[in-house]
Amino acid sequence: MKISVERGVLLKAVSQAQSVVERRNTIPILANVLIEAEGSDVTFRATDLDIEVVDKAPAQVERAGSTTVAATTLHEIVRKLPDGALVTLTADTAAGRLTVDAGRSNFSLATLPKEDFPVMASSEYASNFSVDAPKLRRLFDKSKFAISTEETRYYLNGVYMHIADGDDGKALRCVATDGHRLARIDSDLPEGAADMPGVIVPRKTVGELRKLLDDDDMKIAVSVSETKVRFATPDITLTSKVIDGTFPDYTRVIPVGNTRKLEVDASDFAKAVDRVATVSSERSRAVKLQLDEDRLILSVNAPDSGAAEEELAVAYGDERLEIGFNAKYLLEIASQVDRENAVFMFNSSGDPTLMREGTDQSAVYVVMPMRV
Amino acid sequence: MKISVERGVLLKAVSQAQSVVERRNTIPILANVLIEAEGSDVTFRATDLDIEVVDKAPAQVERAGSTTVAATTLHEIVRKLPDGALVTLTADTAAGRLTVDAGRSNFSLATLPKEDFPVMASSEYASNFSVDAPKLRRLFDKSKFAISTEETRYYLNGVYMHIADGDDGKALRCVATDGHRLARIDSDLPEGAADMPGVIVPRKTVGELRKLLDDDDMKIAVSVSETKVRFATPDITLTSKVIDGTFPDYTRVIPVGNTRKLEVDASDFAKAVDRVATVSSERSRAVKLQLDEDRLILSVNAPDSGAAEEELAVAYGDERLEIGFNAKYLLEIASQVDRENAVFMFNSSGDPTLMREGTDQSAVYVVMPMRV
Repeated sequence: MKISVERGVLLKAVSQAQSVVERRNTIPILANVLIEAEGSDVTFRATDLDIEVVDKAPAQVERAGSTTVAATTLHEIVRKLPDGALVTLTADTAAGRLTVDAGRSNFSLATLPKEDFPVMASSEYASNFSVDAPKLRRLFDKSKFAISTEETRYYLNGVYMHIADGDDGKALRCVATDGHRLARIDSDLPEGAADMPGVIVPRKTVGELRKLLDDDDMKIAVSVSETKVRFATPDITLTSKVIDGTFPDYTRVIPVGNTRKLEVDASDFAKAVDRVATVSSERSRAVKLQLDEDRLILSVNAPDSGAAEEELAVAYGDERLEIGFNAKYLLEIASQVDRENAVFMFNSSGDPTLMREGTDQSAVYVVMPMRV
Repeated sequence: MKISVERGVLLKAVSQAQSVVERRNTIPILANVLIEAEGSDVTFRATDLDIEVVDKAPAQVERAGSTTVAATTLHEIVRKLPDGALVTLTADTAAGRLTVDAGRSNFSLATLPKEDFPVMASSEYASNFSVDAPKLRRLFDKSKFAISTEETRYYLNGVYMHIADGDDGKALRCVATDGHRLARIDSDLPEGAADMPGVIVPRKTVGELRKLLDDDDMKIAVSVSETKVRFATPDITLTSKVIDGTFPDYTRVIPVGNTRKLEVDASDFAKAVDRVATVSSERSRAVKLQLDEDRLILSVNAPDSGAAEEELAVAYGDERLEIGFNAKYLLEIASQVDRENAVFMFNSSGDPTLMREGTDQSAVYVVMPMRV
């Protein structure tokens, strides 16, 4: 194999691939990226056995071929090369080396046989459809904060992407919850997605996917089977196993009878919560909300270190209510609100509370109260 | 005590003070800042028993007095308050509380008696003089990278500030070394500094001092005794114990007979060292320099992972030389060079190498070679 690629193009392709490589793995080949050159393209493939990223870039292919080399070392080298440099990669299979040449810099890296590289088995996908990048971005960005980190509840360690009955008919829906809070985000049903099986997309995959979604004009090809999910742009294909488990029936958690409505400026609210929580060294300390006619008093009481109280002008017309929440959960939920106002719907101080963004019905958040 | 201070002014004063507080200390009062209000000023005082920072700010003092309160909590609260807010601090000695009021936010913080706060004993200073901030900044910025972290050689855990015979007569000099590399930086002798005792300024003090030196127009009042050093601006006074030890005779380490001169673009050199060092996972791996007529080849050989080589056009007219250095040390020294060229003076591959910045005689660096 002998190819030449412009440094910027190479850096982009290698960056995406190397980020999926596990830093501390004990199987040497998994630290490597598989480089395959043919025609006028080179592909970089990396995997952690659960996720596979394949990144394609245009290259001057002088001699087709393939090899594998340490992903992070190659990435570091390319990153440090001067912008605009033409980088030549030459594989010497007999010597087990890949040379990287750019200007007066020469590197010789140890390779491992390409036959040892675990390529993910190809799958039949039950459903194939296309989604605009901004829509997919919103679905995952607004739900991922609620992903559980509890390993024992592995079926909550991801975002449940499925087809559901939304307010305006069928919707593509993402749900995440850790039992303390929940996010349910809807987007309109893409053509061809109606029969998609519901899948739990693992946390790491959600993170890798995010890197594909920055371009507003990009359309993402999504393929889903019972065991795998694939997201693809013209250059990058991200394939991931999905979590082998059943996502719990989240619909029972979303309260329907909450009638006490609080409307508050989302940014003012988040800042006030952040301020009153300062007096407590424990991040899990409860913030107390005292609601009265168009008035909200936020307070924290930490016997050792101090107390804090802040008043906000709000829209609230129901009877007096006191309710406590984990400050961190309240902050995270409030920071999801893109619109001006966060609308909270309370029942009692012991019941789950619902939050929406203004009049938007396509995003619903639930947070459990805490005794204060 | 009852005072009102604009949020920005308060934040600046509290920031400086709280940074000296040790995060993990077991003596509660040391986590606190002593607030003292009198006349039209408030001072914030914090200490870790080795360093004391006193920060003065203008305030509307309604009732003079003093108290102590958790430094980080106060800092966090002030940081989160909206810009431009007027902050009122009211001490209730009987209740042991300090209230912080700003707009609709109210905080009540636990206090500790001001009598418990350890105020650093005042000293007689043998020498008092004034230095422009940029000069002091240069002295410490260019030497601090060489401070040793070895606790057993505690007398190297700081910058040795003293009066020495420089190239143009007496100079204010800062030296730091860890036995592997050394930096010796000179500045012209300030008026009144000639009799200053040499002191070893501890690493943490160097870090705190740096925050006083950002303003180019500032003059820093320096006071030195055998046991303490003090740096003061009109608002901030930083007092520190100095390291109780004898700095070794560094002059014997600086080679005088090195005649082989290499002149190289400092930025190109640093980038090339950084690149070739990439192939080695160990940061301490040696970089080999091969010098020949106007040519420098940098190389690293890491049997497990690979090899790297890079050629630079340089000015070198002496005989062929091969010499190895720790890549990290070479990088750190090269990055001190403000001018275009780094000038290295070699003797043999086993002898310490000297580096200067272009034709500047006031900064000298020494680095020990490594066997390659």
